[in-house]
Amino acid sequence: MSLLLVGTMAFDALETPLGKVDRIIGGSGIYAAWAASNFTSPIKMVSIIGGDFPDNETSELGKRGVAFEGVEVVPDGKSFFWSGRYHLDMNTRDTLVTELNVLAQFDPKIPDSYQGCEFVMLGNLAPAVQISVLKQLKKRPKLIIMDTMNFWMDIAMDDLRTALGMVDLLMVNDSEARQLSGEHSIVKAAKKIREMGPKYLIIKKGEHGALLFYDGKIFSAPALPLEDVFDPTGAGDTFAGGFIGYLARINDISFESMKAGVIIGSAMASFCVEKFGPTRLKEISAADVDGRVSEFVSLSNFEIR
Amino acid sequence: MSLLLVGTMAFDALETPLGKVDRIIGGSGIYAAWAASNFTSPIKMVSIIGGDFPDNETSELGKRGVAFEGVEVVPDGKSFFWSGRYHLDMNTRDTLVTELNVLAQFDPKIPDSYQGCEFVMLGNLAPAVQISVLKQLKKRPKLIIMDTMNFWMDIAMDDLRTALGMVDLLMVNDSEARQLSGEHSIVKAAKKIREMGPKYLIIKKGEHGALLFYDGKIFSAPALPLEDVFDPTGAGDTFAGGFIGYLARINDISFESMKAGVIIGSAMASFCVEKFGPTRLKEISAADVDGRVSEFVSLSNFEIR
Repeated sequence: MSLLLVGTMAFDALETPLGKVDRIIGGSGIYAAWAASNFTSPIKMVSIIGGDFPDNETSELGKRGVAFEGVEVVPDGKSFFWSGRYHLDMNTRDTLVTELNVLAQFDPKIPDSYQGCEFVMLGNLAPAVQISVLKQLKKRPKLIIMDTMNFWMDIAMDDLRTALGMVDLLMVNDSEARQLSGEHSIVKAAKKIREMGPKYLIIKKGEHGALLFYDGKIFSAPALPLEDVFDPTGAGDTFAGGFIGYLARINDISFESMKAGVIIGSAMASFCVEKFGPTRLKEISAADVDGRVSEFVSLSNFEIR
Repeated sequence: MSLLLVGTMAFDALETPLGKVDRIIGGSGIYAAWAASNFTSPIKMVSIIGGDFPDNETSELGKRGVAFEGVEVVPDGKSFFWSGRYHLDMNTRDTLVTELNVLAQFDPKIPDSYQGCEFVMLGNLAPAVQISVLKQLKKRPKLIIMDTMNFWMDIAMDDLRTALGMVDLLMVNDSEARQLSGEHSIVKAAKKIREMGPKYLIIKKGEHGALLFYDGKIFSAPALPLEDVFDPTGAGDTFAGGFIGYLARINDISFESMKAGVIIGSAMASFCVEKFGPTRLKEISAADVDGRVSEFVSLSNFEIR
């Protein structure tokens, strides 16, 4: 099934305890597209870039079934730029530079060729932008998932509430879930957030895995224990892309399928962190993905007798 | 199969964000015995108590198949007492009072009737005490598991290394694993600790579950997401008791059985935290245990298609 993907296409500068890179391709749309393209096509990207965005990055994704008609190009503008430094535990990071550039004027227009997508992922963007995309869709998609972050809870809570009322699934990390709900207990936080709109909620816990909540049911997915996390940038977007890409492939949004989707997303994220930026996601084959998913099966599989 | 259990039998005073209790029965031996007695008997307890230890506590456990011949009673002595206060996140706590009392003179003697136990659990005690117990066993048990804590790493590292060389499985929490190995990465920490002796290693992560390491293989068990953790005291000992009690019941120590054991231990620990001290462990029925184990199955079970 076709997948509509709204997210950033950007440049990042990254510094982790294991290395440093001055300029690498990034953005939520890029990570999600690389991950999702292992499972489904076409993928219809909605984003905005400057004249500086490299053609080969879009053509590589184009070969994997990603369409860019919905990506606005501002020839004399610069693409979004983010620079960050990770702490030793890799769970916390400092933002060093945020240059919105063309993203400041992002007012997405959904082309006619994008209408009818059954699966929609709204990457972390201003809630007003997420709402605008949904309002332009002529037919209600089968599944709308969204990401957000603490920044929007601080400055755009009204819009965020509106957006939450329009989507099926929200994906946040544990500290964001606590901030959004005002509850310390993750179970209580999940209950409150689901009352705000999304029937489904995924809480990402980094090296501790992820939780999926729906209708009194909970699924707990492990993270793959890794010797080293090289660069966590984009892991959440990669998770989201793998999750919705898999659901689009099997064209099913039952709770059972979503559980499998969380495992697929976790497997994709475990690749993402192995090298800087999306480097590792560009290298992996279908066999690599299958092998990694099998590792998750043995990691969490047990039988009581 | 018979299980030898070495641990404390004590009184605790506990303060959590949800309540306070001035004097309640506790100690690693007590928690482990309540948990293990759901699965196996006889359980041969090795401990030391003062004349103040209530008869009804031992007789309740006696009805569940726990033997106390190896428990030294010091009629004019006082039982071990610990008092602690938990922080809001329930993951950290301050020790307010530690009165060793009779525990200071603990020099366990293994009665003849205890010889031949196939399963042995060494609760968190001075490594010298753990070593002394193992040296008194005439036949090498099938499985020896031990718990320890940062305190012994600080003051008795030589003895601790000796003990680690004598056991099959070590059980510690994540911060203890990091301290013992000097490695931040849990995977690297596990490798180093397994080189110190124990073939198997369980790293407990509280609300994030537990990891079991053996021979390049890893199993990740979830924790049951709870609305409230009422009192985490004894959860680790309860986990250990459930784990080894289950293995003793099925009389199998394959990796597959240990995975199931970790789930059983997690299920028992999830009961323990629901009320103060071992209160909840005393209430639950076999049906409660089965129900909780089923919850763990649905929590972690998935199918990729």
